Parts: sequence; C-alpha cells; structure tokens
Amino acid sequence: MTLAVVTLAAGKGSRMKSDLPKVLHRLAGKPLLGHVLDAAEQLDGATQHVVIGHGAELVREMFTDRPLTWAVQMEQKGTGHAVAQALPDISDDALVLVLYGDVPLIRTETLAGMVAAAENALALLTVTLDDPTGYGRIVRNDKNEVQAIVEQKDASDEQRQICEVNTGIMAMPARYLKRWLPALSSDNAQGEYYLTDVIAMAVADGVAVNALQPSSATEVEGVNDRRQLAALEREFQSQQADSLMVQGVALADPARIDVRGTLTVGRNVSIDVGCVFEGDVILDDDVQIGAYNVIRNSKLGKGVQVESFCHIEEAVVAQACNLGPYARLRPGAELADGARVGNFCEVKKSLIGKGSKVNHLTYIGDAVIGEGANIGAGTITCNYDGVNKFRTEIGDGAFIGSNSSLVAPVTVGDGATVAAGSTITKDVGADELAVARGKQRNIAGWKKPSDQ
Amino acid sequence: MTLAVVTLAAGKGSRMKSDLPKVLHRLAGKPLLGHVLDAAEQLDGATQHVVIGHGAELVREMFTDRPLTWAVQMEQKGTGHAVAQALPDISDDALVLVLYGDVPLIRTETLAGMVAAAENALALLTVTLDDPTGYGRIVRNDKNEVQAIVEQKDASDEQRQICEVNTGIMAMPARYLKRWLPALSSDNAQGEYYLTDVIAMAVADGVAVNALQPSSATEVEGVNDRRQLAALEREFQSQQADSLMVQGVALADPARIDVRGTLTVGRNVSIDVGCVFEGDVILDDDVQIGAYNVIRNSKLGKGVQVESFCHIEEAVVAQACNLGPYARLRPGAELADGARVGNFCEVKKSLIGKGSKVNHLTYIGDAVIGEGANIGAGTITCNYDGVNKFRTEIGDGAFIGSNSSLVAPVTVGDGATVAAGSTITKDVGADELAVARGKQRNIAGWKKPSDQ
Amino acid sequence: MTLAVVTLAAGKGSRMKSDLPKVLHRLAGKPLLGHVLDAAEQLDGATQHVVIGHGAELVREMFTDRPLTWAVQMEQKGTGHAVAQALPDISDDALVLVLYGDVPLIRTETLAGMVAAAENALALLTVTLDDPTGYGRIVRNDKNEVQAIVEQKDASDEQRQICEVNTGIMAMPARYLKRWLPALSSDNAQGEYYLTDVIAMAVADGVAVNALQPSSATEVEGVNDRRQLAALEREFQSQQADSLMVQGVALADPARIDVRGTLTVGRNVSIDVGCVFEGDVILDDDVQIGAYNVIRNSKLGKGVQVESFCHIEEAVVAQACNLGPYARLRPGAELADGARVGNFCEVKKSLIGKGSKVNHLTYIGDAVIGEGANIGAGTITCNYDGVNKFRTEIGDGAFIGSNSSLVAPVTVGDGATVAAGSTITKDVGADELAVARGKQRNIAGWKKPSDQ
Repeated sequence: MTLAVVTLAAGKGSRMKSDLPKVLHRLAGKPLLGHVLDAAEQLDGATQHVVIGHGAELVREMFTDRPLTWAVQMEQKGTGHAVAQALPDISDDALVLVLYGDVPLIRTETLAGMVAAAENALALLTVTLDDPTGYGRIVRNDKNEVQAIVEQKDASDEQRQICEVNTGIMAMPARYLKRWLPALSSDNAQGEYYLTDVIAMAVADGVAVNALQPSSATEVEGVNDRRQLAALEREFQSQQADSLMVQGVALADPARIDVRGTLTVGRNVSIDVGCVFEGDVILDDDVQIGAYNVIRNSKLGKGVQVESFCHIEEAVVAQACNLGPYARLRPGAELADGARVGNFCEVKKSLIGKGSKVNHLTYIGDAVIGEGANIGAGTITCNYDGVNKFRTEIGDGAFIGSNSSLVAPVTVGDGATVAAGSTITKDVGADELAVARGKQRNIAGWKKPSDQ
Repeated sequence: MTLAVVTLAAGKGSRMKSDLPKVLHRLAGKPLLGHVLDAAEQLDGATQHVVIGHGAELVREMFTDRPLTWAVQMEQKGTGHAVAQALPDISDDALVLVLYGDVPLIRTETLAGMVAAAENALALLTVTLDDPTGYGRIVRNDKNEVQAIVEQKDASDEQRQICEVNTGIMAMPARYLKRWLPALSSDNAQGEYYLTDVIAMAVADGVAVNALQPSSATEVEGVNDRRQLAALEREFQSQQADSLMVQGVALADPARIDVRGTLTVGRNVSIDVGCVFEGDVILDDDVQIGAYNVIRNSKLGKGVQVESFCHIEEAVVAQACNLGPYARLRPGAELADGARVGNFCEVKKSLIGKGSKVNHLTYIGDAVIGEGANIGAGTITCNYDGVNKFRTEIGDGAFIGSNSSLVAPVTVGDGATVAAGSTITKDVGADELAVARGKQRNIAGWKKPSDQ
Repeated sequence: MTLAVVTLAAGKGSRMKSDLPKVLHRLAGKPLLGHVLDAAEQLDGATQHVVIGHGAELVREMFTDRPLTWAVQMEQKGTGHAVAQALPDISDDALVLVLYGDVPLIRTETLAGMVAAAENALALLTVTLDDPTGYGRIVRNDKNEVQAIVEQKDASDEQRQICEVNTGIMAMPARYLKRWLPALSSDNAQGEYYLTDVIAMAVADGVAVNALQPSSATEVEGVNDRRQLAALEREFQSQQADSLMVQGVALADPARIDVRGTLTVGRNVSIDVGCVFEGDVILDDDVQIGAYNVIRNSKLGKGVQVESFCHIEEAVVAQACNLGPYARLRPGAELADGARVGNFCEVKKSLIGKGSKVNHLTYIGDAVIGEGANIGAGTITCNYDGVNKFRTEIGDGAFIGSNSSLVAPVTVGDGATVAAGSTITKDVGADELAVARGKQRNIAGWKKPSDQ
C-alpha cells in the first residue's frame, strides 16, 4: 500500500501580520512547512501532497527542489475541503496521512505510529492538555473507544471536563476519505467543511478509530501568531541544546545557543554563551567556541579555538587553528593547520597556509598565502580595481611588514620581505626585500595647529 | 474638577546601595519616577506634584523639562506626612491621586479607573497575592465593602488568610485629605504618619471606599533593591517583546531583546537574538536585524539589512542599505539608498551616497561621498589636525584605492581614482588619477632577522 | 581533634561523553573538584584527602599547587571502598568528613555544621525532595531519630512516600570508620561496598545519627552528565548575579551575566546584558560596562566606561577611561587616567598616558605613549621583525597622523607631529614634524578599468 501524505498549507495567517504566507515563516531558519515535509519524508514510501492557497506561488517556489504534488485550494472552505483538493491525485488503495503546514514539530516516529494504526481504521492523534478550553474534546465510550469529537461550544459541562483533545492529525485509507469527504456538510457557523466530521462517519460506519498520542504536546502545537512561533522556536532550540549535551558538548548556557540547520560535533567540543550556528556546521573533536560567535556553513577542524565575536561563513578551517576575537572569515576562506586569524581581520576567498599568521587589522581577499608566512598588522590585499578582482600570492615564510598594500595581481616570493608601509605593485622575488615608501624628513620648528 | 497627581519620591532607597536617590534608578533606560510621571501625564487635565527629599536637587534636575510642582519633605515622617507637603499647592476642589515614584509600571488605564471611582469617595487600589505576608490586608464587611486595612502585625489569624492587600495607591477629593491628614497620628512603632490610616477615617466618616484592582500585580510592584529592579526590568522587557510580536515583528528570542525607549516598526521586520535598542529607533518595512546589534536613536529605511555586531548611533540609513557585520555608525552618519558599510568600518558625521561602498577597515569622518563611489579597504579620512576637524569630499563614481589616506580638507572629483596606498593632500580633479606613494625597490640578498 | 576531609574523585563520568575525568569538568571556569576543595579548605584545621582513580594523573596535575594527600582507588568498588583507600593516612583521633568531587556547590557553612554535629556521632546530610524517586529514603523512628537508609528497590510503599533522602555526605570520628568500613559487605547487585551501610552500623552500635540539611538542594546536586552540569552552572551563575545585586550592582539581566572567577565591585557599578567575566576582575566605583563585553583578569578604575563588544584581558585601566566599542586590550595594556581606546583598536603590552587617545583602527604593541597624545586612525606600531619585538616611544602631546606606520625601535618626541600616511623609521625629535610619504602626482586622462 502506498502512503500519501497530505499537508494543508493554504492558510494566510493574518495574525502573523506579514506579507508572507504563514507556512513560509521560519523556525530555526527553515520554513514551517519545510519542517513538516522533512518529518514526513522519512516515512517509508511516502508521496507528498501539499494543498496551497494564499501565496500559493511563493510556497511552490520555496520548495521547487522537492518531489511534491501540489493541489490548490482557491477558497478557504475548511480542512475537509482542503484535503478534497488533493484526493484526485491519490489512488484508492493508498493510505492518507493528513498533516498541517503550521504544525512544524511533529516527529517522524509519531507519524509512523499513525500509519501503522490506520490499516482499515482511522488513526487519530490526540493530546491531553491541562487546559483544554477551546479544543474539540475526545469523547470515548465505556470501552474507551473514541465515539466522537465534540467542539467547545457544543460540549456539555461534563464533556468540557475532558482534557483529551483533537489535534486534527489523522490517517486512514484513501477509500474511506473518498467516501466520507463528499458527505461533509458546511452547515455550521463558519460555513466550512471540517475534516473532523469524518470521525463521526467512521464511528457510524463501524470503522475503528485508533487514538494515539505524541511524545509531547510540542509536536502538535500550531503557529498562528508571532508569539506562538517564538515559543516553538525556543522549545525547538531547547531540544537541540539538549541533544548536543547528550552527545557530550559542553554548553555554557543551553538557553543561549541557536542552531538553525545541522550542527555536527566531535568529542570534547565546548560552546560558550550566545553562539549562533546556521546551515551545515561541523565542529571536530576538541573545538572550543568562545562567547558570541556566528558560524554558518563551515567546517572547523580538530582543536580549533575560536575566541569571542567571530563571524565565520562558508569557511574551512583545518586543525589547531586560532581565530579571533573579531575575526571574520567570508566565503572561500580556507585555513591550513595551525593558521591564525586575529582581531579585526577579514579573509575572503583565500588560502592561509600552514602556521601562517594574519593577526591584526588586515584584509586578505583572493589571495594564496604559503606556509609560515607572517602578515603584518594593517596589511591590505588590493584585489579590486573597481571592475575586476585580482589575485595575490605570498610565498612560504614571507614577511609582510605592517600597513603594507599589496596591489594585485602580484606575487611575493618565498622568504621575501616587504618593508612596513610599502605599497607593492610589482612582484617580489624569493628572499628579496621590497621597499616602497617615501623617505622620511624631519622638520624642526614645526608650528602645530593651535586653538588660540 | 481638576486632578492633582501627587507622587511620593522622597525615599533614599538604602537597599539599592547607591549614591543615587531611589527614584532616579533606571528601568528600560528611564528613571523610575519618569515612568510614573509618564503614566500620569496621560490623564486628562492632570497637574503633577512630586514630593522629594533624599537627593532632592538631583531629582529636580533630572526633570527640569516637565511642568511639575515640587514639594520638599525634609524629614522622612511617613507617607501621610509626605502627601501633606504637597497639599498647600492643591485647591480644595481638586481630586488627588497618590502615586509612588518607586512603583514604575502602573498603567494609565488603571489610574483613569481610580480617578473615576473617587468622586465623593476614596478609591483604593488593591491587589490579590498568593502570599500576602507582610502586607496590609483589606478587611471587608459582609456587604463586601472595605472596612479597614489591617497591618500584618495587627492581623488576627483569620485576617492573615486574606490575600487582598493594600497597594498604597489611592485617590480622593482634596477636601477629604485636608480634613484627614491633620488628624493622622504618629503613635506607632516607626513614629510615622501613615497615609493608609485615612481609610479608617473614610469608613468612620461614611465615605465610600471603592477598591479597584490593576490588570496585573506587576503594575503595583515597588522597587526596593537591585533584585526587584532587575525583576521589573525583565517583566517590562517581556511586555515590550510581546507588543512587538503582536505588531508582527519576528523575534528570534523574546527573552533576549532590550528596548530602552521607543522602537517603531514597519511590516515584516525581523530581529535576531541579543539586540539592544535605545532612545527612538525606527525600523521601516522589511528591515532585518541580525544577532547582537546595538542601535540608538536611529532610523533604518525599508529593506535595510544589518548583519551581526553593529553599533549604530544617531544615524539615518536609507532604503536597501547593507550594514556589517562589525559596522559602526556614529552620530551624523547618513547613508543614501543602497549604500553599504562593512566590517570594521566607522562612519561619523558623513554622508555616504547612493550605492556607494565602504566595505572594509575604513574610517570616514566629516566626509561627503557621492553616488556609486568605492572606498577601498583601509582608507582613512584624516579629518583632524589635533585641533580642528576638516571635511573630505569624494565625487560620484570615485574609486579610492586601498590603504589610502585622504588628508582633509581635500576633494576627490567625480570619477577620479586614487591609487592604493596613496596619501592625498591636494585635490584630485574629476576623472584624474592621483598617486602619492613611494617607488618600489626590490633588494636582493636581504638577510632577514634571525634568532640564531 | 584534627579534621580530615576525604573527597571522592575517582569516577570516570561516562555520561559526560568526554576524555576528561568527571571531576575536571568546569563549572564557572573551575574544575568541579576545585569547588569542593575550596569549600572544605575554609574549615578550621582541615587536611584534605582526595581519592582518585580514572584519569588519576590528570586530576593530580590539575591541583599540584594545593596541599592534598592523594589516595588511589584502582578499581571502582564503591564509595565505602573509596573512603577506605584514604583511611591509612588518617589518624584514629581525627574526624572524617566525606565529600564528593562531583557535588560542587556544597557550602562551607553546611560543612561546618556537619563537623560540629559529628562529635561522637555520625552526622549525615539529608535533603527533602519533591520527587524522591530513586534515592535512599531516611527512615526515622517515633522519636524522629534516623534509623536506617532504605534504597528505592528495597523500600516499602509507605517508605517510598518519604521525601527526605540521603545525600551521601557524612562526617564521623575516624575510629568509627576504621571499625565499620572493614565490616562492609559487597553482597549486593553491583557487588560494591557502600559507605551508606555504615548508617545501619551506627544505629546498631548505638552511635547517634545526626541529620542535617543544606540551605538548598542545589548544594547537594551531583553532576553526571552535561545537562546536569549546565543546570548547576546556571544555578551558580544565578547565585552570583544575586550576590552582585545585593552588593548594589545594577544588572540589566541577571540571567545574562557569567562570572567565572572573582568579580570585585565598588559602588554604583552597572553591567549591561551579556557580559562575561573571567579570573580576577576588579571594577571600581561608578564603572559602567556596556552590553557584550568579555573581561578577564583586569582592573578597571573609578568611572571607567566600557562600550559594547570589548575584549579586555590582563589589562589595568585607570580612572575615567573610555573604552570601545570594539576595543581590545591584550595582556600588559595599561591605561592612565582619562585615556581612551576606541573602535577596532588593539593594545598589547603598552602604556597609554594620561588623557591620550587611540581612537580608531589602530594597533599599539610594545609601546609607551605619553600624556595628551593623539594617535590617528589606522596607526600601526611595527613592533615585530619576524623574530624580535621592539619598542615604540611616543612623547607627551605628540600627534601621530592617520595611517602612519611607526617602525620600532623608534621614538617620537614630546610635542612632535607625524604627518598622515608616513612610515617612520628614524627618531623624531621633540616638536619636530616628520613626513615620510610619496609625493602626490595627479594624472589627467586616466582611463579607469571598465567591464566593457
């Protein structure tokens, strides 16, 4: 039997007060809908159907790289109506799992349980809340079988005491859905077709209703406004921090780390307060990350130490390098073993060789630096003429004096020295000394500007 | 009837362990007393009286720009005595509202309710606490009318079970106060005149005591030590974060944003973790603020993107500009549409023209830069001779080579080029190339310093 | 009577998932075991014994500067067996206090109480938990005397209701221990010798068991995994924040400050969000620390103001100095009264004289700067030739033009001026002007690079 996952993603989300369709708002850097699709994707043999409406084109564009079948709900006529839009694309012998694009933290394990419980039955995900006010209560008979879902306004005083509520997430054979959906009525206050009403039809048809629970209520929490989104973000970040600690990472404060993507860690990794990781970040064994670092899509090798206030993006840093404080690695920065990039330094699309040092107030762009070179404070590679970018090459063991400008394209040979304050426009041979600066004159009797 | 608000602000606040009078300690950047005055100021037709004592001069100086009537309480002889100091300035037909300079989060709506309830009556603000220990209990008769306030030490066991307590905030016609205050006794353990005792007098005189409650206990929490101040600060910040989210702002973490002043936001604004806003800050539609930014009294136009670690103060940034990471805008920085200020750059009292770029390790001070100019890495405007500041002008489309020094006053014309590493002391004409650097000599056989 | 403190520190801590022995993991920058040793050290006349096992050598090396007696437990055969390893070094007339190297927040006051209660008796530290599941329950007789400790698995339903549990911390005369320990049995599920079993022996021998409680449960919480460590870290940081506030420090957010060492504060000190203090830091009266500063082993004088994003390490800053934003002071930086170090400046092993300014994009290393000097933006002291470090001296009132390079060893005299963009290689006399830069040539008709 095939599995068809139908995710409802047509809502506008007015309470978000945003121009973006609700399901495109991001949690941990990923659109809400992306979280749901990712959870469902791991189910065996699932095909995914997404029902879109508000901002349909924007939603579609965001996920062009995924094998999704789209259904469009032109008007918002309820969840039952939404699912019906996807049904024509689903074969009768499929099993249908209905998810919501604004309920992002659902887990694959929970969904797998739903699928298993939906063979010739309706599987319904319910959750027990301390305060069930406003939710549809799960009414069971004396054999503990689900009999009905009673909405708040229709519930008797006794029924309102029930704390088990409907989450809306359900699974069932497509053939049932195809029978029940056309029978839904919109004869209610909102004039909508509610998917929930199929429960009563299942009961009426003698189809078993199997209720399952998620591992925590967080899995079924929906996002309707910015506060709910922020609350889920913190919950998700807390889960990720927990997972990192279980893996053995020393976190200075689990409430002050943000992981938006995948953070892969080795042994004995420590992360100080306030760090933000985005995209795919890999921290090898013994990496130490100081306070307030922002790291994106980068790989840090064994024993790398990062001081505070660094900004690292699409960089590859080999073993035992030292970074920061205030080091900025931009895309294409590549550091060999034991290299060091220090304060107020920017490295872009450049290779820093083994053990070489770029310690202070320096801009290195489009450069290749050999091993054991020392780049003095204030050095600038002048890689741009306003139109083109040019390359700087600095050899092994070269010594670039402070405040030098290296006008690319230019090569400084192995073991060469550039005198401090020089502007180098011509290649410097191996072991040569290049000087390019004005001659000093001291003038006595200089009258300084004065405010008198 | 006129409304006279009397705010008691004479206390020292010994437990703050500070040289500052208690009411001058700041919550969200504003003195505690300022919060109270602001809340009262919005009441129709209110005149404000402030009773000062400890640090009277300091308090007065802090609020010279407000129309306040000051009364001085030379000795700390109790709240009743404090109010009495203000009475001579208040006409008999006024209504008096008594507030406390160290109870900062009281809301105008609550005060308006108090005023409305004080016509020919005494309006008393009470609050219900889970643990009322230490507070004066509100004793009511079987008609639920307030009969008395019984202090902790005088309360019977039964009375100690009462959770409704006195907040000290009250309102009543001035004529009552003028009758009751002189009748207060200081015959108690502290030898003070307690305002609270007027409740009993009202009951004795058959004046109705109308008890009202604030929307939350936070409104009536006082500040006596640093811990209470910090707790109220966090509560206030949480309220502000909430309000931003209701307005549609995407906050990465509502517990890690500090707003000290007024943050005005457009649509689709997002703010990452750890940002601090001070004074009046305006963020237009689609502004994205990265993690760890400090922004004061500035305006950021539509679509501006701010990367992490920026420090922006009294700056005006037009549409679609890009800032940071590590960009510092100082007072008077003004960026036209699409301008960019990058890492380790400082801009002071300067105009950066449309689409111009100041990307790396640069200091721009007292300069006017045209449109489409490119300022190379490490460029410094030398605007200061030790006494005076001078101006640098850079034309449209100019290209300033890296590591250049522009010695002001100096003008670089439209389309002009300054060669990297140059020190420019004379004006450069439009489309000219200026070079001012030493000639390069390469010296072979250079013997580098060695540690052998 | 002498006091012998025996701390058990032999465990591996597998759940930490680390190569480090458990007791060497750090809380607030100090190894767990260090916290315990510090608490015990303050007890009168205590000699300290530490039982080590896993990673014994690493543990020993970490504490070589302390007068400790080490005992090695080769095999992990239980707490009773561990204490037995230390006994040979303890005289019969000593009193023994048993502590745990992974229970770091125990307070000296609590331990002193234990010692006092252990005269001819067994003093046992117990704690009352809301959920005692899993812990050994304290069973008392109807005279409220401790009768036994019953482990979870052996407890009756009634006993499981007991919320008072064993912490494992106990004190007693050595002569009792020497009698009881050899009588311990390993006839249990783990096959270990449990120290806890001496309680039953004490009862059997008619020795009084005196149960004491810590001031809070935090004191007796142990660390077994990263989550517990992080939780205790936050608890400890919260205690420290509380203590700072009681001392009168204005903390913007007590949940966002980290103190790893000793922070000594004067009056009227304020600390904004997100600061990290390490080692010994002294903040004198009226110091104001902005948001996101990292300060290590430094002393800041009266009235110093630190803006955001500074990194200060082993520096001494005199009165009324201004730092930052983005100032980095490295070891040996010393600022005299009223000096200023501004954005993107790095100061290393240098003295900045009274009122002197180093405001922008500057590197000062191995320099001595006099009083009232102004160091222009982009100035670099070229202190390193690849092998040796040399010294720069700048006199009182000197003016160093922007983007200058000072090639050490070099002296710029009092009142001297260095022209902007100069590379200074020879001494400049007092009041002289030194110029060392290329002559400017403007070239008309320059054809800029073009992309056409």
